[in-house]
Amino acid sequence: MSVDTQQAPAELTDHELKALDAHWRAANYLSVGQIYLLANPLLKERLRPEHVKPRLLGHWGTSPGLNLVHTHLNRVIRSRGRDALCVWGPGHGGPAVLANSWLEGTYAQTYPDVSRDEAGMERLFRQFSFPGGVPSHVAPETPGSIHEGGELGYSLSHAYGAAFDNPDLLVACVIGDGEAETGPLAASWHSNKFLDPVHDGAVLPILHLNGYKIANPTVLARLPESELDALLRGYGHAPIHVTGDDPMAVHRAMAAAMDDALERIDAIQRSAREDGVCERAHWPVIVLRTPKGWTGPAEVDGLPVEGTWRAHQVPLAAVRDNPEHLRQLEAWLHSYRPRELFDEQGHPSAQVLACVPDGARRLGATPHANGGLLTRELPLPDLESYAVEVDKPGATIHEPTRVLGDMLEYVMRRTGERRDFRIVGPDETASNRLQAVYGASGKAWQAQTLPVDEHLERHGRVMEILSEHTCQGWLEGYLLTGRHGLFSCYEAFVHIVDSMVNQHIKWLRTTRRLGWRAPIPSLNYLLTSHVWRQDHNGFSHQDPGFVDHILNKSPEAVRVYLPPDTNTLLSVADHVLRSRDYVNVVVAGKQPCFDWLSMGQARAHCARGAGIWDWAGTEDGGREPDVVLGCAGDVPTQEVLAAAQLLRRHLPDLTVRVVNVVDLARLLPQEEHPHGMPDAEYDALFTRDTPVIFAYHGYPWLIHRLAYRRAGHPHLHVRGYKEIGTTTTPFDMVVRNDLDRYRLVMDVIDRVPGLAVRAAAVRQQMEDTRLRHHDWIRAHGTDLPEVADWTWDG
Amino acid sequence: MSVDTQQAPAELTDHELKALDAHWRAANYLSVGQIYLLANPLLKERLRPEHVKPRLLGHWGTSPGLNLVHTHLNRVIRSRGRDALCVWGPGHGGPAVLANSWLEGTYAQTYPDVSRDEAGMERLFRQFSFPGGVPSHVAPETPGSIHEGGELGYSLSHAYGAAFDNPDLLVACVIGDGEAETGPLAASWHSNKFLDPVHDGAVLPILHLNGYKIANPTVLARLPESELDALLRGYGHAPIHVTGDDPMAVHRAMAAAMDDALERIDAIQRSAREDGVCERAHWPVIVLRTPKGWTGPAEVDGLPVEGTWRAHQVPLAAVRDNPEHLRQLEAWLHSYRPRELFDEQGHPSAQVLACVPDGARRLGATPHANGGLLTRELPLPDLESYAVEVDKPGATIHEPTRVLGDMLEYVMRRTGERRDFRIVGPDETASNRLQAVYGASGKAWQAQTLPVDEHLERHGRVMEILSEHTCQGWLEGYLLTGRHGLFSCYEAFVHIVDSMVNQHIKWLRTTRRLGWRAPIPSLNYLLTSHVWRQDHNGFSHQDPGFVDHILNKSPEAVRVYLPPDTNTLLSVADHVLRSRDYVNVVVAGKQPCFDWLSMGQARAHCARGAGIWDWAGTEDGGREPDVVLGCAGDVPTQEVLAAAQLLRRHLPDLTVRVVNVVDLARLLPQEEHPHGMPDAEYDALFTRDTPVIFAYHGYPWLIHRLAYRRAGHPHLHVRGYKEIGTTTTPFDMVVRNDLDRYRLVMDVIDRVPGLAVRAAAVRQQMEDTRLRHHDWIRAHGTDLPEVADWTWDG
Repeated sequence: MSVDTQQAPAELTDHELKALDAHWRAANYLSVGQIYLLANPLLKERLRPEHVKPRLLGHWGTSPGLNLVHTHLNRVIRSRGRDALCVWGPGHGGPAVLANSWLEGTYAQTYPDVSRDEAGMERLFRQFSFPGGVPSHVAPETPGSIHEGGELGYSLSHAYGAAFDNPDLLVACVIGDGEAETGPLAASWHSNKFLDPVHDGAVLPILHLNGYKIANPTVLARLPESELDALLRGYGHAPIHVTGDDPMAVHRAMAAAMDDALERIDAIQRSAREDGVCERAHWPVIVLRTPKGWTGPAEVDGLPVEGTWRAHQVPLAAVRDNPEHLRQLEAWLHSYRPRELFDEQGHPSAQVLACVPDGARRLGATPHANGGLLTRELPLPDLESYAVEVDKPGATIHEPTRVLGDMLEYVMRRTGERRDFRIVGPDETASNRLQAVYGASGKAWQAQTLPVDEHLERHGRVMEILSEHTCQGWLEGYLLTGRHGLFSCYEAFVHIVDSMVNQHIKWLRTTRRLGWRAPIPSLNYLLTSHVWRQDHNGFSHQDPGFVDHILNKSPEAVRVYLPPDTNTLLSVADHVLRSRDYVNVVVAGKQPCFDWLSMGQARAHCARGAGIWDWAGTEDGGREPDVVLGCAGDVPTQEVLAAAQLLRRHLPDLTVRVVNVVDLARLLPQEEHPHGMPDAEYDALFTRDTPVIFAYHGYPWLIHRLAYRRAGHPHLHVRGYKEIGTTTTPFDMVVRNDLDRYRLVMDVIDRVPGLAVRAAAVRQQMEDTRLRHHDWIRAHGTDLPEVADWTWDG
Repeated sequence: MSVDTQQAPAELTDHELKALDAHWRAANYLSVGQIYLLANPLLKERLRPEHVKPRLLGHWGTSPGLNLVHTHLNRVIRSRGRDALCVWGPGHGGPAVLANSWLEGTYAQTYPDVSRDEAGMERLFRQFSFPGGVPSHVAPETPGSIHEGGELGYSLSHAYGAAFDNPDLLVACVIGDGEAETGPLAASWHSNKFLDPVHDGAVLPILHLNGYKIANPTVLARLPESELDALLRGYGHAPIHVTGDDPMAVHRAMAAAMDDALERIDAIQRSAREDGVCERAHWPVIVLRTPKGWTGPAEVDGLPVEGTWRAHQVPLAAVRDNPEHLRQLEAWLHSYRPRELFDEQGHPSAQVLACVPDGARRLGATPHANGGLLTRELPLPDLESYAVEVDKPGATIHEPTRVLGDMLEYVMRRTGERRDFRIVGPDETASNRLQAVYGASGKAWQAQTLPVDEHLERHGRVMEILSEHTCQGWLEGYLLTGRHGLFSCYEAFVHIVDSMVNQHIKWLRTTRRLGWRAPIPSLNYLLTSHVWRQDHNGFSHQDPGFVDHILNKSPEAVRVYLPPDTNTLLSVADHVLRSRDYVNVVVAGKQPCFDWLSMGQARAHCARGAGIWDWAGTEDGGREPDVVLGCAGDVPTQEVLAAAQLLRRHLPDLTVRVVNVVDLARLLPQEEHPHGMPDAEYDALFTRDTPVIFAYHGYPWLIHRLAYRRAGHPHLHVRGYKEIGTTTTPFDMVVRNDLDRYRLVMDVIDRVPGLAVRAAAVRQQMEDTRLRHHDWIRAHGTDLPEVADWTWDG
């Protein structure tokens, strides 16, 4: 294989070259050791079967390439005095990043028992992919990491998220050619159209082509170089190619490529920052082609391994049982010449450490990878100044998200200098009625602009791209490096990032158990344009199931809020923006909605998370109510209040209680979720034996799944979305899903003992109204006047 | 704006040109009519407010571009005698596709009351985005469609799926520049490396750049043309650019581009089919740049609309109230000169219809878009010949998916000529142990091959790309056009396609209600490498929640199976591969697993979906059991049987029943799901008042959500995955999640009345074993010998 780089080799001295190679060999040695060894880490004895782990787990294939990149990043960080962070996309190569962290001393600093000596080396090896030890991937436990290497696709968007508003940071990002086939990764290349060379740092993608996935060649590795080059230029990058399998030649080429890339980056940033150049930059990308499992066994059992997919995981699989494999492993380990790399006590030699940067410049020590250390409190307004005035319930109407937009404008404005707050969304910020924020910041955009464009801004902090994946990745990277943000999304399409949020929640769950990780700002979703208000988009845009998905995850990290009106939305937003280490899901409408609570009432109600709305019911403080009407969500709340009003009119002697739930996890037992209510509190709200008709925003069985342990559960009847979606009016939607006020009244009559006969006429009247609705809407395409003009008369 | 195409204009006669323009104007007229008009469809009267819909809904912006593409596709289909299908990515432009379908007569053929005359035109207009009418997007209701235009990202992978194994089909695919920003779309460009020019049809992507999304410019539209050109060449395509805003010039250029593209396609196919050329082809792509909302109002209320994002939905929003808007709408409609296009009775003129193809060549009439019409029964083997021999339960061990691989090899082989079966997966076919299929077909691959490669084949029908999105899109397109397939995926990462499967289920739910849509083969998932067997991948690879996601969806379309051993897996596979119009989720292990049932028993058990395993319990046919042990999933079944064995040994007088559930929906009430059990049947299995300890593969609360209405629910105690994932042994995983045999025995002792005291010593012994496990695994990294060597002694 040839060495090929457009750049003249950097003038590495022989001494430097040897030192780089020593570092790389040491990292390779430590990588192999982690996969195989339980004992005898320095090979002081001949290798015996009992030195080898009983279960061989881990990924060798990508490790030597990652070690090469780490070695060469060390060099430029040290020589150029750069602050850097690296996102390791091929995170299966955990052994490599762990090896480097151990070498640079950050591992022992974080985990003192894994010291930088023989005993620590043995522990490093033993713990790897071992029960009770550390995962085989780059993970939250790995110093310097903000990116779990399990599910592939998110490295580059994470890297951009880390770079935004970090002008002095270099974010390197290694992208494996497997990951490069995924959709989220493919989309995220265009992030460079959103990177501001003035206020943001630099992202240096390093596309590492080692040619194979688990069992197949990769697409990008099998393109002619000219085609790959065109692709990367089409993505807006200036490619620098490094290809080879001779270590010394590759070291020279890689050092030259790194220097070239960093000089190009410096030039771009200088011209933007000092000369005010506004043209979109073509940032460098390094394409590194080296063999999969490079320096590992060339052949095993007569089959080629190095440079093939067979090097993906554990190249020698039977070391404990097959003496030939054992011999090959020993030879492989010795090929790195460990005696040159480590002294008798297992300390790395001075030559090995020559390229390693100092202090916080070490990739494992950068505070940006432990972002909570850098987090500042977000400036939030006095809510009263954004609250809508509510003298009595249901007398006024606002669009909740529009008012929230005003409040977010304040946050955006107050962070104008600090630049630590961003809003992301897939082209929906204005559609979701948050456009007030443009008063404080435009939308990030580095590509061409035309006179007709509005609110595009080179330095903007509202981020819009029609890729939920990219939005999510950007925001995760931004939060993981200690800043704040909000993702506003159509409710149905947030499922696009189901798997991404899974991984983020896993990350939070794990980091919460690590003492050295500082809490980071929460990932906040505002889900609007929701299931009940898809008047023209119809069925394809109707899905309230993200909440179900989230509530399956680690209770310590997930929160779900359904504010029923404008002031409750403000209160919830204030709460989630202050919080740390959660994924908060806020579901709220953008359409005009009655105001039910004053700001003071809203705060108190949200603090409780669920409560009785006395003013809406007909209890007199005496005996238990005849029926409880529960509700969660803006549309269900309105239907419940309308039902309460009908009951008051038609069945005045019925005692009705209305309970509104904002914080859905409150319905869970307290043992199941930190917000879960004690049984006594649940019983005080919902009673133990009164019929409860509960109108819920989403799939009704979720409420059963939350409340099944409660004493009153047998009396709980839930209405919600039954997957009957279509293009129609808002009220027709609730009728079709049996969530409408008339149906709720019928439910009460059907379930309160003794009402069936006494209230038969009322029931018939409700039924008739529903039938009348069906006729009317077919004829007029609008809702019944009595529904369209409905107001609360309480 | 200029007209720019690399090709000399096709030699359109003036006559042809005028006819094309007439067709386009007619489609535009009908598109506007759908968005606005309730009555007066031919403008026989002056337009009055009452002719206009009370709620104006729909997307104008993309419609004229889609109409242009449809017009020009008509032309080449007709002139070249091509069979074609079109995937309309910007499906928001429903009015356009509906207009064309109405014009070509397929709409009236499908919906006779929407006839091709004035009355039908009025119905076409009225029903659009109207309650009880048709969705505003291209949808299942739209003749000729296989692609819902709601959630964006999947058009191109659907198009490839339709083209695979359809050698005579041209699949055009319009990709909007909004959709082009999504990850799934970005990844799917590389599908061309998997398209076999011999056995597959052609895909012609038409990237339609109209410059804007809802509220923003699009990334691709704001690249310099040279950069976009490089990107498309990097994707492996040969771009043909058409740019303009003068209709006649664009017609000429588009006709030339279409001719050019089709000639290039013909040349590629000819050289591969006739000359045996094996080089990867560079298929054409058309880049069409026309203004958003082209031919619509240039300005509204003083703001530019045509050619901006303001044209996205309804350009004139206040037509019923604002006389100026009404006047503008009337002028806009008249600008198409409807009197030239339709006669007094509303029939399209001969000139308008001149370009429309005949019969099944019409895009709305192609049987490929109603794929069930073309579906043949899949050749499936006699299961007995693949069954593993089981003389008694638990005496033998097999890897279930490996045996399934043998059976799939048969299917693959038997469809070698017919080519109507494909397996897709993200680089995991072999990892999931299905590699036997390579005996019948290699993996599709058109890119470079190297001597070390295995099983790559230009004509292969196993599809592997590291993009779950692309796999899903390919398979959906393949099924929707009437063929069969299977998606094998790691269980955790199938969440990547949560939102895609949502849309497919919605599609199925809707098509099942349309008499004219023939049932298509089911979408079958094999989820393996599951939560309990991620020994080295750990937490990031552990998530059993896809089942929860699926069971939230339309019950008529979703099925979930958890076969507990090899023969049950074969039986389930046989069933799902025969089925139609479902999404079937099969969760099964790939690791060695005890065989419990013979093929005959497996068939009977799977047919029931849930049943008592007499041989595993200790009932003597007399009184009700003291406890029921329920299980669903391979690992939980093994733990339950081990628990039953422990109970038999330690508490021999306890009467234990073991119930295994294969078909999860059986637990639902029969009113809630077609597979739901009647209460009597449920009670006969689980009793009404005996404690049930249920060991479930996934999140335990799912079982509660399914069974909460059953009489015995208060006595149901479920164990499952509690989101405690890590890198460890299989048995340690079940211990950590309290699903292990010892914990299950303790649960029995805690819940069966009277046992607490009597069995205190046994309970302590179980507790001690769990403690011993913890010590052992920390020391050895392996499971307790008594667990590792466990066998069933029944």
